[in-house]
Amino acid sequence: MEKDIEKSNDTLENNEDINLKAMFLGPKSENEEFFEESILKLFNDHAEWRKNFHPEDETIIKVSDERKESFIVSKDRLREVLIELSSKLRAGSVPWHSPRFLGHMNSETLMPALLGYFAAMLYNGNNVAYESSPATSEMEEDVGEDFCKLVSYSNNGWGHICADGSIANYEGLWYARNIKSIPLAMKEVTPELVELKSEWELLNMSVSEILDLMDKAGEKLDEIKEHSARGMGDKIGMLGKWLIPQTKHYSWLKAGDILGLGVDTMVPVKVDNHYRMDIDELRKTIEEYTSKNIPILGVVGVVGSTEEGAVDHIDKIVEVRDEFSKNGINFYIHVDAAYGGYARSIFLDEDYSFIPENQLKDKMIEHGAILDKSTLWPSKDVYNAFKAMEKADTITIDPHKMGYIPYSAGGIIVKDKRMRDSISYFATYVFEKGADIPSLLGAFMLEGSKAGATAASVWTAHKVMPLNITGYGKLIGAGNEGAYKLYHKLEMQKSYKVGDKIVDVYPLVEPDFNMVDFTFNVRGNKDLKIMNDLNHNFYEEASYVKEALYVNNFLTSHTDFTLGDYGDSPLKFVEGCGIPREEWNRVEKVTILRACVLSPFLNCDKVFQEYMKKMDEAIVQKLEKILG
Amino acid sequence: MEKDIEKSNDTLENNEDINLKAMFLGPKSENEEFFEESILKLFNDHAEWRKNFHPEDETIIKVSDERKESFIVSKDRLREVLIELSSKLRAGSVPWHSPRFLGHMNSETLMPALLGYFAAMLYNGNNVAYESSPATSEMEEDVGEDFCKLVSYSNNGWGHICADGSIANYEGLWYARNIKSIPLAMKEVTPELVELKSEWELLNMSVSEILDLMDKAGEKLDEIKEHSARGMGDKIGMLGKWLIPQTKHYSWLKAGDILGLGVDTMVPVKVDNHYRMDIDELRKTIEEYTSKNIPILGVVGVVGSTEEGAVDHIDKIVEVRDEFSKNGINFYIHVDAAYGGYARSIFLDEDYSFIPENQLKDKMIEHGAILDKSTLWPSKDVYNAFKAMEKADTITIDPHKMGYIPYSAGGIIVKDKRMRDSISYFATYVFEKGADIPSLLGAFMLEGSKAGATAASVWTAHKVMPLNITGYGKLIGAGNEGAYKLYHKLEMQKSYKVGDKIVDVYPLVEPDFNMVDFTFNVRGNKDLKIMNDLNHNFYEEASYVKEALYVNNFLTSHTDFTLGDYGDSPLKFVEGCGIPREEWNRVEKVTILRACVLSPFLNCDKVFQEYMKKMDEAIVQKLEKILG
Repeated sequence: MEKDIEKSNDTLENNEDINLKAMFLGPKSENEEFFEESILKLFNDHAEWRKNFHPEDETIIKVSDERKESFIVSKDRLREVLIELSSKLRAGSVPWHSPRFLGHMNSETLMPALLGYFAAMLYNGNNVAYESSPATSEMEEDVGEDFCKLVSYSNNGWGHICADGSIANYEGLWYARNIKSIPLAMKEVTPELVELKSEWELLNMSVSEILDLMDKAGEKLDEIKEHSARGMGDKIGMLGKWLIPQTKHYSWLKAGDILGLGVDTMVPVKVDNHYRMDIDELRKTIEEYTSKNIPILGVVGVVGSTEEGAVDHIDKIVEVRDEFSKNGINFYIHVDAAYGGYARSIFLDEDYSFIPENQLKDKMIEHGAILDKSTLWPSKDVYNAFKAMEKADTITIDPHKMGYIPYSAGGIIVKDKRMRDSISYFATYVFEKGADIPSLLGAFMLEGSKAGATAASVWTAHKVMPLNITGYGKLIGAGNEGAYKLYHKLEMQKSYKVGDKIVDVYPLVEPDFNMVDFTFNVRGNKDLKIMNDLNHNFYEEASYVKEALYVNNFLTSHTDFTLGDYGDSPLKFVEGCGIPREEWNRVEKVTILRACVLSPFLNCDKVFQEYMKKMDEAIVQKLEKILG
Repeated sequence: MEKDIEKSNDTLENNEDINLKAMFLGPKSENEEFFEESILKLFNDHAEWRKNFHPEDETIIKVSDERKESFIVSKDRLREVLIELSSKLRAGSVPWHSPRFLGHMNSETLMPALLGYFAAMLYNGNNVAYESSPATSEMEEDVGEDFCKLVSYSNNGWGHICADGSIANYEGLWYARNIKSIPLAMKEVTPELVELKSEWELLNMSVSEILDLMDKAGEKLDEIKEHSARGMGDKIGMLGKWLIPQTKHYSWLKAGDILGLGVDTMVPVKVDNHYRMDIDELRKTIEEYTSKNIPILGVVGVVGSTEEGAVDHIDKIVEVRDEFSKNGINFYIHVDAAYGGYARSIFLDEDYSFIPENQLKDKMIEHGAILDKSTLWPSKDVYNAFKAMEKADTITIDPHKMGYIPYSAGGIIVKDKRMRDSISYFATYVFEKGADIPSLLGAFMLEGSKAGATAASVWTAHKVMPLNITGYGKLIGAGNEGAYKLYHKLEMQKSYKVGDKIVDVYPLVEPDFNMVDFTFNVRGNKDLKIMNDLNHNFYEEASYVKEALYVNNFLTSHTDFTLGDYGDSPLKFVEGCGIPREEWNRVEKVTILRACVLSPFLNCDKVFQEYMKKMDEAIVQKLEKILG
């Protein structure tokens, strides 16, 4: 297989596209010289900037200071600590950079992002206020606009960087909660604005209708806000249920807690065999609650579920909203695309228009977003889901996941910037009233002080690699294609011979995105507990648990699907592994191995074959250790 | 004055103390070579680590790849963007590093912190889970222990890094809200645990009493949590009021909103002329509410208010709690030491014991935490306040403020780690049940994914500079002494001659910490609006607003004290500026200039005199421009 013609990332591209190999330090530090030269240049720029700020000012640390014993001792101590730091980092970090790591949604991160962070950290802007960070505040504005283009929000949209996807999800729920409580507050403060509306109608107004009324409230808006969920807790209990897919990320439970709704407000909706929210179940759930006069505060669609990489039918969730809207039931839609959001860049042409389905394949090939025509990604379902994202009210998107940006960088995008009025604050010292300041970020987000360096990091990456098929599309396509290949490799593989045993391998489901879940089972075994133990032991062998990370030859991650969380959705898969239904009912969970393919290089056949060989050898070796 | 004997940071220290001049890159990049050498070494360590992870694995980016046009074009694009980035950063960043900047709580940050961040960012650990970051997760554990030592919490304490002080404050309120709702939940789930207690008694239990009952709940604890504020929103409205000083930081209004209590739950308590919470007013407020059967959820004491650097009487707040406790009224105490927290290191001896008051001065001199015996800091009030911090339930502390760590690094410290049960979550994929993992951070904090690099940055700084009088104490002492000198300089200065006018300068109040607020007024002016305009115009001249940051010769910040927020607390000061009371009633706000002294070098007389001369010249020049 190694004789296959090499297809590299750049054979098919035109000059305007990005060559991914120039964007990463590389699994073997191949771009070491460039990285080194760049940090030195950026550091030198900074050092000279310091010196030339009022060049007439004298140095404060004198050459004679450097000869003092206390200076020498202090610097020695710093040196020693840096050596200790470096040693700890090398011994206790996960080698994300190697294609031998196929586990969490990690790989090496982008050189532009690392260099951008490093440079801006030296200047240490605080993006809470423009005053403390003119340069990086403007970069965050740019990034917000990039986000809006990525999800096809109009000029009315707005976005910002936040600490992580959990914070972004809280912010989405915060918007929903506060906005949906506004009509109840209007009833108290400006009843003329909501005349003749029943309580049910007030609780079921659409976001745009509420925003239009807020526009009409004029000077009364502050008082309305004081009576909304922002000002008083008393209305929160009336707002109804927040629907999330059954495969729920735990941040939603935290969100229900933190935002004061209570975890019991978070209602899981069953998922189908593909681990996507079941749309009939969604409809049923909404009917069930609304028939009991319990409103639906909002619905979360997930683009890239944390455990399966599943992409919910955002288009169908939007359809359901439109259906119910006709009967006066309006709910908020938040798309949690923390994981999958950046993948929308694959679908965007150079001018950021959404590429028609019948042209997509050709465009992907043309730009090298996929290299192999036989890669059947995306499915029609996935295409439609990504397209419909523009219909959501808010979207979570994490640069530190598929943006290949170092931690911590999450993000949120808001469809209509007027929504910010429902959560905004002002503090005297941070915001000068009436001043013509381009950004007042701290007034419109959950966090306070925040690193300008994060904005610089994301800005630099976006600037080098546009959020469309010529830039990020290629990068994310590479991971997706690698995942597609891995899935089919495991499908074809079917089993490993381990001593005198045959161990079968079962990929969970054709991936919607770049995540491949799979399990091992010893042929003939019908005991789910034994199968779970095998996969759990495999995870321990393929992680920090059993062997030093640095000498491990294959690393992956794992998860459990439990009956409590997943209902019977995993049953069909479990049966496919040769385990009878009674076992599922008895054991109530299945342990799954979980491989995200983020490596930008595994789409290349030669590299893929090479690392699959290494993976197969490692799998057999680890299984031998466990079973032998 | 320049002939004064130079007192530098290191004349008085013994070998074990830190020489601050070895800890910073320096206002003129004096330590440039060391910094450069260190980043190269750390980067080289990382690059070799990549190469030597399975040295048998081939390179993926080949030398021949580097010759491809697309590679060259892509790298060129990256180079261009880095040049643009660097240019934007230099043009639009605030020169925190220069003693000409005396505004926000910023200065240059510590070399160990910058280098620590840079190194760890290359490895990109995610401290949400140990599995993704063994090295940096352990560093965060260490930092948590450092925090506990800093505030004299026992072994039962616990702390972690969070995105910023606002998030830490939300977390404090989250703890208070969930814990205080537990007794109501017990009444529903395990009534036998709270037998005979009235609703009022349930709402007024002490934190330790509640934690002891939680210990007794055994397997019922999960069900209790489902009935607490975590699980259901219905009890939040019963928990009562959250008392904050009138000088409230806006994060508390956001906290009330986000946590679902409503902003109207946040009750401001008047401050005295020193801008500290008035303890009689606190007592009165508590009596007022409790006499109406409205409980007090908690009280916030602030150590370093954002606008004044005021330190609340934490000791007296604790006394008030103990008084009311005798009458069965128990409330939570959160100390918001986001700004001032690190200053507690001044009070800690090498063994982290709190230095007796009568020895403090000598110890400070001995270790160089102050250089000049005539520096009368701290006052008895401030000493007592810092000492009493150990009595609080939770404490916010920001490494990115007085820890001299780059953004974003906040922190929270919890007195009794059992409190974590009230907020904890578990997610299958992140946390392996039963595994012996040293840290499960994501289950016990508001955020999700977070940069391991932040932990490495703080860890490196703490490791080099212990959180006691031999390390951080010296650094924070330097800023405090600089502020003390600035305050007395302005006191002595009294006025500036500007053309034919005399402009008087009025420092607000002797600083509790390192912040000096002041105003200008043209002698003879009795119009508050005119005085405010003068100070506002001065701010505009001394910031990015009127002149490019890079050529400005003096930079500061400003704030408004309004009647609405501050009541009459500023009246005495306003009158002292020659403005009659009627003007205060008419204009309802006073604009203040605000100078935090964080420079580690202004405690040295020579440097201080040099920069005061520059400041005086800049002040006169700016006032001439405004008045001329």
